[in-house]
Amino acid sequence: MKPLGPIPVGYDAIDGVLAIGGRPVTHWVEQAGDTPLFLYSADHVRRRVAELRAAMPEQLALHYAVKANPFPSLLSLMTDMVDGFDIASGGELEIVRGADVPLDRVSFAGPGKRDRELEAAIRAGITLNLESEGEAARALDIAERVGVTPRLAIRVNPDFDLKGSGMKMGGGAKPFGVDAERVPTMVRQLAKSGAEWRGFHIFAGSQALDAEAIADTQGQALSLAARLTEDSGVPLPRCNLGGGFGIPYFPGDIPVDLALVGQRLADRFAHLPDSLRDTAFCIELGRYLVGEAGVYIARIVDRKVSHGEVFLVTDGGLHHQLAASGNFGTVVRRNYPSAIATRYDAPAEEEASIVGCLCTPLDKLAEKGGFPRADVGDLVAVFCAGAYGASASPAMFLGQGPAVEMLV
Amino acid sequence: MKPLGPIPVGYDAIDGVLAIGGRPVTHWVEQAGDTPLFLYSADHVRRRVAELRAAMPEQLALHYAVKANPFPSLLSLMTDMVDGFDIASGGELEIVRGADVPLDRVSFAGPGKRDRELEAAIRAGITLNLESEGEAARALDIAERVGVTPRLAIRVNPDFDLKGSGMKMGGGAKPFGVDAERVPTMVRQLAKSGAEWRGFHIFAGSQALDAEAIADTQGQALSLAARLTEDSGVPLPRCNLGGGFGIPYFPGDIPVDLALVGQRLADRFAHLPDSLRDTAFCIELGRYLVGEAGVYIARIVDRKVSHGEVFLVTDGGLHHQLAASGNFGTVVRRNYPSAIATRYDAPAEEEASIVGCLCTPLDKLAEKGGFPRADVGDLVAVFCAGAYGASASPAMFLGQGPAVEMLV
Repeated sequence: MKPLGPIPVGYDAIDGVLAIGGRPVTHWVEQAGDTPLFLYSADHVRRRVAELRAAMPEQLALHYAVKANPFPSLLSLMTDMVDGFDIASGGELEIVRGADVPLDRVSFAGPGKRDRELEAAIRAGITLNLESEGEAARALDIAERVGVTPRLAIRVNPDFDLKGSGMKMGGGAKPFGVDAERVPTMVRQLAKSGAEWRGFHIFAGSQALDAEAIADTQGQALSLAARLTEDSGVPLPRCNLGGGFGIPYFPGDIPVDLALVGQRLADRFAHLPDSLRDTAFCIELGRYLVGEAGVYIARIVDRKVSHGEVFLVTDGGLHHQLAASGNFGTVVRRNYPSAIATRYDAPAEEEASIVGCLCTPLDKLAEKGGFPRADVGDLVAVFCAGAYGASASPAMFLGQGPAVEMLV
Repeated sequence: MKPLGPIPVGYDAIDGVLAIGGRPVTHWVEQAGDTPLFLYSADHVRRRVAELRAAMPEQLALHYAVKANPFPSLLSLMTDMVDGFDIASGGELEIVRGADVPLDRVSFAGPGKRDRELEAAIRAGITLNLESEGEAARALDIAERVGVTPRLAIRVNPDFDLKGSGMKMGGGAKPFGVDAERVPTMVRQLAKSGAEWRGFHIFAGSQALDAEAIADTQGQALSLAARLTEDSGVPLPRCNLGGGFGIPYFPGDIPVDLALVGQRLADRFAHLPDSLRDTAFCIELGRYLVGEAGVYIARIVDRKVSHGEVFLVTDGGLHHQLAASGNFGTVVRRNYPSAIATRYDAPAEEEASIVGCLCTPLDKLAEKGGFPRADVGDLVAVFCAGAYGASASPAMFLGQGPAVEMLV
């Protein structure tokens, strides 16, 4: 038997069925009219944001990284809860526009921004996190052509990475941002260009669970911001300290110690160097805000025994949950938290693998886990489905199409 | 410098620019109006099918596995070239219907067929490759309800796998098909049920380059088909021997020796056991027919140097070419064949990485390859993009959306 990841706090059963948003998932399946579906809990997101606000220094603003989950109702919900949004493409710009997100609170990072994306962002008053000198030149040209003062920040490629992070975004040659040593010159050029100078974006990694590592990285980002500001001689209005707060996906994973991160950051804010006294700071989180708020629900279509092993074949799969299948940037496949949603408080009785409906051995949602005995018609739940699920999976693979998504 | 995979035969330059379908790719980009785009060469597919037909025994039918590339114009092209189509979902059924594929030449395999998919297939006269006794019972119930004689075959989970294949689909406990020892009983039940008995589907693996291994596996499939037919006592009208023919993606990969596979199969066909004398055989290929016929074209949006390394940032990425980025069922990332399409016959001058526009370090199309010096505006080509590209990638990731596809 292989262990399953830890089910996030906040999920319980009603009449033996997994509940979300105060109702059993069977209710939501009926409302949706079909499986598979993604259910996102508004309460879970609210609690998570409240926990963060309580732990972090009051002056730290909170941004949402839209890429984690661009579902429009979720963005609308977020509008009242976070201070800003970060987008990663012109497509995401249209999505936030459609969700009535105030565009002056939006920033745009991404290494391959096309001219038309730069133009749309400049016209909308969005802050561009510039990824290179070349992009800066293109943005200034476009701004002049369209007659708008662009809001420009620099994404810095830091000389450090976030230890233990799932994805390292700094600490060497990267396609992201501008190498730190070239930043002061670029800041002076932007300040002279007539653009509105917005500051730095420093993102060193993502999906870290080690609070000490996150706190150390924030400290390094502050030191780097101070050094670059002193070197450039241009005041720093804003600084995005990045994100990196991970969530537990796998057996043995422990949640981030928020109190430690908050305390360490408060200590640093209390002793900021003069160069950062007037700087407004934010962090930018995606997965941490919404990942554990989402549950993916699929229905068992077949129960098979092959060479003594039980397979619960569902109508879902990697086309909706690529990362859970272990096929997205993972070297060794491990099980996400999962359960038989319609037998949620029943004890584990057998070893079974939950698989998807695709004709490929890659399509596994849970491998050799311990589950109550389930049969055709039962619903399965894969947790931690609120981030990098629906939008980060190949929905059209094998002609399947997207799952229904609901904020509940 | 890291090696690049081998560029498939059949690609040349016109005026220094990579050509496909007799025209430089710049022509097709202009026609498409945008990058990125997938270009599929009809001539390449025709040549591949002709090579296969020439090498394989005449009585072997050729099926196309739609999952490899369901682009409608490509399916229409295939209609005149192959003898049958295999689909993997109700969605693919609608796609082949839309492409005017004759539905009586279609079979449907897939471990999680929903009732509504079974019903649509039965009504359309499609052959169902049954994956379990439970699915057989559901199919018979549905057929009775709708008053149609169902065409039923059994997908056999063979007791062997395809050696050296990229994905093993047999040789142990699998969610696919029915374990061989249970097949004879099931055949007798289906024969008695009033269904039209169509035969076996035996698929042991995919993406193998070793002709000996493919030939051995075909031999094992024939032996298994004979044994199961003799055990069941029911004549075998048809047998799908699976696919497994791979294409070279990576440095050092060598194409399948088609002549060897064809000769070995012809020898076996000349000495078939009595139980298979009247059986019609086919193979089912997807990637092998179309993979090398496709090229993914993206435009360089930025040329960056970070810590001395060159990054060519494109407007494409893993959202269209997940497998090429090394994030789809791959343990160690290696480079697909790629080139600077607009400097196709220029010599390599520098080491550069071709990356996508997504804000993730996973988004690499070519890592530290040797390329002519390229700049903003140049087009890059990633080869072997004709199969499991557009439809097997998370097109909506980071709000990007799908690429244009063209058959040329």
